[in-house]
Amino acid sequence: MPVSHVQDDRQAFLDWFAERSLATGCEVEWVGLDDLKEWRSDPVTGDLTHASGRFFAVEGLHVRTSYGTVPEWSQPIIRQTEIGILGMLVKDVSGRLFGLVQAKAEPGNVNTIQVSPTVQATRSNYTQVHQGHRTKHLEHFTRSRERVTLVDVLQSEQGSWFYGKRNRNMVVRATRDVPEDDNHRWVPVEELRRLLRTDCLVNMDTRTVLACLPYSLPSDRPYPDGADVLSALVRSLLPGGRTRHSLEELLSWLTEAKNRHELVTRRASLDGLAGWRRTPDTISHEDGRHFSIVGVRVRASEREIVTWDQPMLYPHGMGVVAFLAKVIDGVAHLLVHARFQAGLLDRVEMGPTVQCNPSNHAGPQPLFLNEVLNAPADRILFDTVQAEEGGRFYRSENRYLIVDAGDDFPDEVPGEYCWVTAGQVTSLLKHGYYVNIEARSLIACVQSLW
Amino acid sequence: MPVSHVQDDRQAFLDWFAERSLATGCEVEWVGLDDLKEWRSDPVTGDLTHASGRFFAVEGLHVRTSYGTVPEWSQPIIRQTEIGILGMLVKDVSGRLFGLVQAKAEPGNVNTIQVSPTVQATRSNYTQVHQGHRTKHLEHFTRSRERVTLVDVLQSEQGSWFYGKRNRNMVVRATRDVPEDDNHRWVPVEELRRLLRTDCLVNMDTRTVLACLPYSLPSDRPYPDGADVLSALVRSLLPGGRTRHSLEELLSWLTEAKNRHELVTRRASLDGLAGWRRTPDTISHEDGRHFSIVGVRVRASEREIVTWDQPMLYPHGMGVVAFLAKVIDGVAHLLVHARFQAGLLDRVEMGPTVQCNPSNHAGPQPLFLNEVLNAPADRILFDTVQAEEGGRFYRSENRYLIVDAGDDFPDEVPGEYCWVTAGQVTSLLKHGYYVNIEARSLIACVQSLW
Repeated sequence: MPVSHVQDDRQAFLDWFAERSLATGCEVEWVGLDDLKEWRSDPVTGDLTHASGRFFAVEGLHVRTSYGTVPEWSQPIIRQTEIGILGMLVKDVSGRLFGLVQAKAEPGNVNTIQVSPTVQATRSNYTQVHQGHRTKHLEHFTRSRERVTLVDVLQSEQGSWFYGKRNRNMVVRATRDVPEDDNHRWVPVEELRRLLRTDCLVNMDTRTVLACLPYSLPSDRPYPDGADVLSALVRSLLPGGRTRHSLEELLSWLTEAKNRHELVTRRASLDGLAGWRRTPDTISHEDGRHFSIVGVRVRASEREIVTWDQPMLYPHGMGVVAFLAKVIDGVAHLLVHARFQAGLLDRVEMGPTVQCNPSNHAGPQPLFLNEVLNAPADRILFDTVQAEEGGRFYRSENRYLIVDAGDDFPDEVPGEYCWVTAGQVTSLLKHGYYVNIEARSLIACVQSLW
Repeated sequence: MPVSHVQDDRQAFLDWFAERSLATGCEVEWVGLDDLKEWRSDPVTGDLTHASGRFFAVEGLHVRTSYGTVPEWSQPIIRQTEIGILGMLVKDVSGRLFGLVQAKAEPGNVNTIQVSPTVQATRSNYTQVHQGHRTKHLEHFTRSRERVTLVDVLQSEQGSWFYGKRNRNMVVRATRDVPEDDNHRWVPVEELRRLLRTDCLVNMDTRTVLACLPYSLPSDRPYPDGADVLSALVRSLLPGGRTRHSLEELLSWLTEAKNRHELVTRRASLDGLAGWRRTPDTISHEDGRHFSIVGVRVRASEREIVTWDQPMLYPHGMGVVAFLAKVIDGVAHLLVHARFQAGLLDRVEMGPTVQCNPSNHAGPQPLFLNEVLNAPADRILFDTVQAEEGGRFYRSENRYLIVDAGDDFPDEVPGEYCWVTAGQVTSLLKHGYYVNIEARSLIACVQSLW
């Protein structure tokens, strides 16, 4: 494919996206929690729930664990038991895979709209609890008989903010012609991956779906045969390469990690939650750290319904999410961390090397944060800011980094860490609950490097 | 291997087992729940907990679901958050795999001792919360550096009786000579599998560990090349065979099934649980159905400690657990059911075709129960009674059946069912939470057929 065409493609996409940004209105106004229409506080527990009993609830959670430096704490958490669909429709055109993306507004987005999958819908959403418009293109994902399914797996979301949340990540091949419309556009998947190099453009739901879709090399680039870390990292995405640990060893390492600590959670009243202060307007931590629960009133011009109120989780400060990479015996490996998080179904999934919010962190500095933040510029392979889910989180942003750890970095690492290849992570993404949302986002970033 | 030697091996094993049965005392006396030493009822919720805060608790659970015929119910449930180890040590002798089994008494066993894995220990158990003896051979499973691990995976247990329970299923190769002792004996794995054809001899923990260990054909039997269902079923255990559905289709079917219904659980007070009656002695269902929670006092002569009290779950009536099998396009398939159970981590796992307790069942008869119970004798490939976990369940027994569905049985089945091969199930057992305990027990039974 000639480079000029690729540039034309990209410019056309960016023009369309700019036009959608101007056309899409989404006004967000802060409203006190007690004033949220259709939401109520449970008289006994103080839980925030929707009048329909659907969508999601904000509840209190008490956590006791032998993992990490804080043995016990309470926190608000979002409980969303129903499973949503994050679905991307794809098609082949002249040997290139295209995905149908949507320009979607969410109240928590700093920039109103971001690139989202073809369909992004909670069950309450697509069963039309709120009596809105039906979700466009949903039928491609729900009609199982005629479906050609490339990806169909339940994956977790933010385990510190959601309790047991999971979404169905799907990639489905279009079996008939699906035309573009105002909000939907066909984009080459390799181009979509490259858009990740731009801050806050490709939303979290797109990133997790892309991570689950097996990687193939871009059609307009040569094979990455260089001896440099970047080339090795791209090669490591391809299936069948050599690995430091076999799949069996990797799974046993994760099982061992799950068994190393206890983590027990109990529901707690959202009112009177130890360490948190609730006013009629917000719920915040006594020290001003972590996050607040706030209320918003949304007026959208391009959504299933036009106006609604909801609580949102507003994180304080920007997080750091990073992989350290190292070439070991000629093969690039990523350092994953067996991370306990109270809201994960099985408590532990593989996370990035570093995942923290430095401005919120109490206690000793997280392991390897220094290596990430103070790496020389020539070792930083990837560095952009990405937004988390704008439907539940208000302006949640993380700095995503992929950093070459350098030859001096030890091959031997503490037991909670393990060297894996990007290809091993991708192959595990056939299954749910192995790789957390932050690590999946980063894998999508690795896929954007070439 | 000459048949006479095999018979000698078996006789020697049965002689040893009979000797252990005589030598092992385990007196079990019923005690009222309010009189259990070291156990207390929470003054607010009525939960039954151990004074140490460890081991397990009996709590109330409220369930709301769109699955099945009962939309809402409450029940007592056993919460055991800590992960135990079910570990089998193995070694090769002249090309045959041997496993080190234990003759282990449990208070719930009708026959006191059963064949158990080398190590069977909860975390409280092996960290010696009760100040008893240390668990013998545990070090082979906990020292990860020097371990040669064949199986290491977390698997669920009874999802209707346990909330979120899972155990670490392990098979580890002995790296040094491990001698037999009074309670431990080396047995050829193929012989161990055959012992499953005897009622209530091989315990549940051994069955799940055997199921997770990839199958190989017995050394003393010819290759199963017959055209009959039994031969086809044994061939289907071997990896790499043809299958009706690809792995991707199978995983997508399960994801779809998980998304089909909602199932929401909430803790409820064990006191005043709707539909249940609590006395100082027991907790039972108003209709006398399902199960009771009872108390027992145990005096054992061969255990970590000599005497203890505990609550147990006492199921009413014997259950039926069955696979229908059918040869489709020359390959034997098993009919699995995507089964919602309130205590499973992700609510749904693949279960047997039929899993029910006919004497307890209210409402319409479960699908395919008739085909199982009224099959002609020549279609019944396997039919034994096996006991469930004797450490938590009092005299829990199920009739395990593998039944040839016959050529007239349709290939097309309802959406909650799927035809899979025994080899596909075995390959999924590398991962946790795909296959429920009843189906894993049945897979061990399939492995015993040849």
